[in-house]
Parts: sequence; structure tokens; C-alpha cells
Amino acid sequence: MIAVDRSLATPLYRQIYDAYREAIVDRRLRAGQRLPSTRGLASALGISRIPALGAFEQLLAEGYFEARRGAGTFVARSLPDDFSTAEAAEAGRPSRTAPAKAKGRTRKRALARRPDALLRRAPEPWLAGFGAFRMSQPAIDAFPLEIWSRLVSRHSRNPRQNLFRYSDAMGALPCREAIAEYLRTARAVRCEADQVMVVSGSQQALEISARVLLEPGSPVWVEDPGYRGARDVLTMAGAKLVPVRVDAEGLDVRQGIARSPRAHAAHVTPSHQYPIGVTLSASRRLQLLDWAHRSGAWILEDDYDSEFRFESLPIASLQGLDRDARVIYIGTFSKVLFPALRMGYVVIPSDLRQRFSVVREAMDICAPALYQAVLADFLSEGHFARHLRRMRLLYGERRSALVEALDEHLGDAIEVLGDAAGLHLVVAFKPEMNDRKLANEAAQRGLWTMPLSPSYAGRAGRRPGLVLGYGSTSLAQIRDGVAALAAVLTASR
Amino acid sequence: MIAVDRSLATPLYRQIYDAYREAIVDRRLRAGQRLPSTRGLASALGISRIPALGAFEQLLAEGYFEARRGAGTFVARSLPDDFSTAEAAEAGRPSRTAPAKAKGRTRKRALARRPDALLRRAPEPWLAGFGAFRMSQPAIDAFPLEIWSRLVSRHSRNPRQNLFRYSDAMGALPCREAIAEYLRTARAVRCEADQVMVVSGSQQALEISARVLLEPGSPVWVEDPGYRGARDVLTMAGAKLVPVRVDAEGLDVRQGIARSPRAHAAHVTPSHQYPIGVTLSASRRLQLLDWAHRSGAWILEDDYDSEFRFESLPIASLQGLDRDARVIYIGTFSKVLFPALRMGYVVIPSDLRQRFSVVREAMDICAPALYQAVLADFLSEGHFARHLRRMRLLYGERRSALVEALDEHLGDAIEVLGDAAGLHLVVAFKPEMNDRKLANEAAQRGLWTMPLSPSYAGRAGRRPGLVLGYGSTSLAQIRDGVAALAAVLTASR
Repeated sequence: MIAVDRSLATPLYRQIYDAYREAIVDRRLRAGQRLPSTRGLASALGISRIPALGAFEQLLAEGYFEARRGAGTFVARSLPDDFSTAEAAEAGRPSRTAPAKAKGRTRKRALARRPDALLRRAPEPWLAGFGAFRMSQPAIDAFPLEIWSRLVSRHSRNPRQNLFRYSDAMGALPCREAIAEYLRTARAVRCEADQVMVVSGSQQALEISARVLLEPGSPVWVEDPGYRGARDVLTMAGAKLVPVRVDAEGLDVRQGIARSPRAHAAHVTPSHQYPIGVTLSASRRLQLLDWAHRSGAWILEDDYDSEFRFESLPIASLQGLDRDARVIYIGTFSKVLFPALRMGYVVIPSDLRQRFSVVREAMDICAPALYQAVLADFLSEGHFARHLRRMRLLYGERRSALVEALDEHLGDAIEVLGDAAGLHLVVAFKPEMNDRKLANEAAQRGLWTMPLSPSYAGRAGRRPGLVLGYGSTSLAQIRDGVAALAAVLTASR
Repeated sequence: MIAVDRSLATPLYRQIYDAYREAIVDRRLRAGQRLPSTRGLASALGISRIPALGAFEQLLAEGYFEARRGAGTFVARSLPDDFSTAEAAEAGRPSRTAPAKAKGRTRKRALARRPDALLRRAPEPWLAGFGAFRMSQPAIDAFPLEIWSRLVSRHSRNPRQNLFRYSDAMGALPCREAIAEYLRTARAVRCEADQVMVVSGSQQALEISARVLLEPGSPVWVEDPGYRGARDVLTMAGAKLVPVRVDAEGLDVRQGIARSPRAHAAHVTPSHQYPIGVTLSASRRLQLLDWAHRSGAWILEDDYDSEFRFESLPIASLQGLDRDARVIYIGTFSKVLFPALRMGYVVIPSDLRQRFSVVREAMDICAPALYQAVLADFLSEGHFARHLRRMRLLYGERRSALVEALDEHLGDAIEVLGDAAGLHLVVAFKPEMNDRKLANEAAQRGLWTMPLSPSYAGRAGRRPGLVLGYGSTSLAQIRDGVAALAAVLTASR
């Protein structure tokens, strides 16, 4: 009834074990049925008795077989008489309401509904490559790899015990202290180390914040156009998204108040709006904080790439203006170090610290230890500040070259937005252009721009454009790339 | 009106900038108010004019100030006339329904309700230390650190480009291939690499699964006694927990069916039940799969420490018996390598792959790259298999020593449960014992045992006991520790 194959890597005893187990699951062998002796089986299969004995022992130990003294070995009578595990799921898209089938048994594959919205998306071929103009990519070739890997080796070769253990859900203290120090001096964030939680990036920071702050159905302001990642988090939290227009001063707080005065939270990118790139004006900052204070709303300040500002000092954080502990300040090392590091932080109002901590612990316990130790040294030994200064110069050069090239090749056909900071700018077109089509055509030529229009929640105010990253795009790539982009634009007219 | 302090590390221009910004936020300066000239300010403060100019430039750029030709500099008239950000939150526990206060303004700090359940917990002093008997700790001193840190250096010094970039939400392919190969051969899991998602541990695996599979209100079977981490994930997902008794054969499937025949999922630890340590019998496995198939439920197979089994081969996974793609198989490297690594995996039914992927991307995008590369090599170069073999011997010795010492010192007063596998066993007491009190007293003597009774959902079937980890407890610590534990027990009688 069973067969073995000496040519397989799987040991013989395991082949026998698997074959009997499967025969039982597939109902070819039933409870109480008699089995051959191991001697008889070995002889029938032409193998030694040892693997047969090993397999039978395991099947007895796990309860598939039972031995009756003097009578031999049987399929355990304790196994259910009638059971079914045998109907393979159909391939393809699962259905929440697949009808009952096959001998009156249900086949339903019930699933959570919230992810449906995330699955209903048009393909985005412009995200397939990592070349010229790809968003959110820093200049990896300028990363101080030698210093970094020396710190990695330092902690990897001679680790302290706590580099092996579960840590506090907030993160390792030296890392949180170094981050707090940096945020106080460079970003005007008012914080102590005990308010800093180490997370895997701004995405996880938003995720944890949403789960601490929002109830299903909570209305939340989101910038329009805005960051899809934030909308996804809020959708998964069951929030009701309230798109609020972004103009030259950033989020239009008055429109937000008109649309949803009692919103529970607002997600904003005040330093360098995503994707348009404007800075939230002083006046809007005060309006926003005033609204939050009066209405009891939370502000999620997503400061994803504020470190690079080319014509003035970095803008001080919104959190630093807040006197009512209503701002959750979120940042990431994905842009200033590199994305695959998966390190970011949240600065939490003191009275919410315990809540953030238990929620995070329930989600994934704590952050990995090694990179926290490395990052703490990288920050406190001054390498980070030096790296930032060098990168600000490098990105400033790239940004100037990009603005110049755009002016030269595209001139009046476009408007450049949001080039005062960050690692990307926006090339805005006249309303009749189809930016998805353009981005698709550009991608076919190895230009990884992102269309602007999908960043809008609806059709209102929607403006076509392309978002161009220049973090990992060299000067030569910028010049050639803009010329190639101009050719794509000309061809599409 | 403002002051500077040369002895501070903060540059003078920043002190001036901060002082004006704060004066505006605190309403000491109002829109339209005239500011001193930078020359006058510098002279009043006794400093050079340069920092004053720098500060004014930044305040003008950010929109706090405005310059009127010929008339001087003013607080921007665009700032709102009346705003408030000035009321500091009271310290202490946030309240969902804090009453309106202070000039008719609300002070509410509205929060999500689900974390409430996680905050309502008695203190657990037995989790404060990492010494003898602490649960879930592997033998870190036996970890092949030299090999591991060589692999870390290999990938850290000469990284490929993809070690810097965002990766696929499922994880890096070489790592997933190595995990799939391991699971097929060692754990009898039926899977291909494209079903494997790399996560930060079994906790995140549960979290993602809950968000893909469960709707708020979904009834879910949980083992009783069972794993608190799983209950927390399910509580946060809004599931309705249905505790199902665990007996000597593991989860009592009949009781589950009687209590909640239409549950949407069951969380089980079939190889080594957490915390009792029993193995789910063959008969129960088939009953459970049969129920899941008939009712359309999902099974979350949490195989958190199945690699170490001392009297037979490792038990084949439940997932390998499933023919209806109803089992989500979850594992972690926290016990077999070390917890601070934060690496685990989920094996996903093929038709749910896309859903898991978008949900995970919305949560934290992807896993960090370096350790995935290191782990892929560690697995595929055979280091992992060798490490497992050595650890199985080491833990087998520790477990035997522990069982012997318990027998010698405590004998008839206790029953030892769940010692066939894993890194912990249970010392069960007579019903009248107070195990929380005992664990607390033991912790004061540096013995980090965990009381059993809090693992029960209610009072039904609750049995007092102590859970003793022996993964990171040496033979000497075991002998001395059991003697000390016996003294604690004697003293408490």
C-alpha cells in the first residue's frame, strides 16, 4: 500500500511515516484498521527493519497508531470515524460568500473587510524600478558605510547580554536618549527619552498611533493630495477619512473645520507636505493647534524628510509649539540613513506613554536590538550630524541641477512645486494631461517618476503632475533623465 | 523682552528664534505687533547683530514675522487673532470623558477603547529579572556568535544594493526560500517560498493574521490556559474570545464546538501547548481540521518552540495535514536563535498571499534587510541545523536535571507537566496553593518562575502552578534553584 524511494533525500523512516499519516488523513486507512508488522513491511519494501520501526514508533507516539498486546498494530480507534480535511481550496481570489458545496459542507473563506480597499488598486508600473527619479531613495553610495559597519561589528562581535533579549516595548534607552537629544536640538521637539518609542519607521508609528487613538468610525482629516501609506493605516483602523485641501500654505485648516469640526485626529506633513512639498505656514500651524485644543483632536505630525531644507534652516516642528500635548510626532531614519534599516520613532505625550507601550507590545513586542545599539553610537559619536551636513550639500546640488534642467527642457509647460526641502519635487502640468499615462511611458524608458493625481482623494482640485525623487539620482542621471522626460512629454502631446 | 544665555550649548540665533516663537504661541506677542530692529535687539542683548539677523530671517521665512518696507518688522498679521494652544494637559491617566473646562473649551483626550483591557493588569514582578527559570530565554552563551557575527560582517561590509532598499512586504526571497526548505524537511509543513512571509516574530505573525482574517466581533477559540500574547492580539482586533479547555490531549475540540460551533478561527499551540506543554493528539488534530473544514474556520497554528522534543522526533505540523488551506502556520527564531533578533515567519495559504501582503505593507512595510541576508546564509550553509542539534542535547540535559531535582526536592507535592518538549515545563500544585504569591516570593529570591493561574481565562478548571523555563538556566542554577524553590514552598505552607 505504501512506497518508498531510496533516491530521495528524505530518510526512509520519514517516507514511511509521511505515507501512513497521509493515508489516514486521506481516509484510505480508517480507525481500527490493522497494519502490517514492521518485519513484514520492511520485507515488502525491500528495506531494513530499522526505518520501519522508527516510523511506527513515531506514529504510535503521536497517536495515529495503537499497539494491542499480542494482536499487533492498528490505526488508533480514538481517531474520529468520520472527518474531512480533504477538499482543496480553489485557486484564485477568495470570496467572502462562496456558496456551500460538496456534500452540504460549507466552503466559505471568511475574511476581514477592511483590507478590501487596499486590494482594489490599479497597477503601478512606475514602482517597479529603482533608477532615476525614484522617490524616497537616499544617496546610498554616499552613505558612510565604513563607519556604520565598524559600529555593526563592534556590537555584533562583543554583544552585551541585552542585545540578545526581549527589550522594553519603548526601545533601548541609549538609543531613545540619542534620538531625544537629536530631536530637541535639530527639530525643536520638546521631549525626554521616556517619551520616545523606537519603531520600524513612520508607517509603524502611524499604525501604533491609530490603534491607540482611534475608534472604528472616527473621522480623521487627511491632506488632499496626501500620503497613501497614511490613508492605508487609517482605513485599516476603520477611520472615516476626511480629505482636506492643501494649498500654498499647506493644509487648509478652515476647510477641515467646515467639513469635520469634531474629527478625532488630523494627519499632517507640516515640514514638507507629501507629495506637493509646501511648508505649513505659521498662521496655519497656530490655527491647527487651536482647533485641536478646542475640539480635543489629536495631530499626527509626520515629519518624514524634514532634515533637508535648502534655503533656510530646518523648520521647527509643530510639536514644539503645542502646549496641550495633542501632537504625536513621527519621524524615520529611512531617508536620512536608508530604508532597509527599518528604524523610526514616535514622540508620545507623557500621559499616553503606557497606552502606546501596551499596544506596541501586543503588536510585535519590541524593535530588534542590534541596530538600536549601532544607531545610538552613530548619533552620539557625531557621525549622524556629519552625514546630515554632507547630504544636505549633495541633495542641494542635485535639486538645483534638477530645477535648472526642468526649466531648460520644459520651461513654460510646467510648474515646479515643493523644491525648498526634502528629496523630491513636483512637476505640475496643465489640467488636461494624463499623468498616469505619462508616468507609465516614462517608466518604460527607465524613468521612475510617480504620477501626482493618484495622491488626491477624489476629483476635486486634482492636478496632474509627476513627482521626481532626486535622493538617489546622480547629476548625470538628472540631466539625461530630464531630457528623456521632455521627449516623453513631447511625444504624448 | 527676550533673554539669551551665552553659557548654553544652543546657538544664540536659535535662542532668539525660540524665544520669539514661544512668545507668539503663548500670546505675549500678538499679530501686527511691532518688533525691535535687529540692530536694537543686538545692542539690548549685548551680542553681535549676526545671530539676531539669522533668527529674524528664519521667523520671516516661516511666516511668524512680516517685513513692511520702510516701517520695520512685525508679528505677521496673517496669524490668527485668537487662538489657544496654551493649556497643558494634566498629568496622570488620560480619561475618555474628561469634562469640558476652562472657558468652555473641551479638554477631552479621546482614545481607542480596545487597549483598556491590556492596561487593566495586575503587576507581574516575576517578569522583572532574566535569571534562573525565566521563560522563553534560549541558552545565549551557547549561541555560535563567531559564525553569526562573521555572516553579519559579510553582509554589512559589502552589502548589495537591495540591503539598503525597501523590500517586498513578504520579505527577501533567499531568506524565504531557506525558511521554506527548513519547514518542509524539519516541520512537515507543505509550503513554497512564495507562501512564506518574514515577520518580526510570532507576535507580529498573529497580529497580521488577525487583521487579514477577523472582523470585529468574530468569535475565536483560544486555549484555556493559553498564551496571553495571542489573547492580546485578538482583543486588539476586536474578536470575541471563546476559551476552550485544554486537557491531556490538548485542546478539547468537542467543547469548542459546543461553545462556539461557528467561530471564525482557533488559536492553537499543537506541538507544545503554551503554557501546559501537552501535545495535541492525532485524534484531536483530525477533529480540529474537520471542524475547520466544515464550518469554514481558520486555524492559527502557533509553533513557537516545537524544534526541541526530547523523547521522539519533532511532531509534524498540523498544517501538513490540512487539505483545505485553512491553517496559517506561525513560527519564530526567538527561541532557536535569540529574541532580540526579531525574526519569525508565517506560512500563508496561497489564495490569501496578496491580502497578507497588503495588510503587512500598511502596517510596517517590510522586515529589515540585514538579518534576512544573514539568516538565509545561516540556514542554507548548515549552521542552523548544527546549532539545533547541539541545543537539543543541551536542553535535554537541562530538562532531565530539572525533572530529577524537582522529584528529589518536591516529590509528591507537585506534578510535572509538559516536559516532553520545548524550553519550559510546568510544576502543578494542589488546588489550594496561591501561585501568584509563590511566584512573587520566588522572584524576591532571584527565581523568575511564572505563575500558571493567570494563563486561565476564568476560574473554571484553574490550576495553580509555576512555569519554569530552563533554556537559559545552567545545571548548577537548576540544582540550587529547585532547592531554593522548595524552601519558598515549605515556608509558604
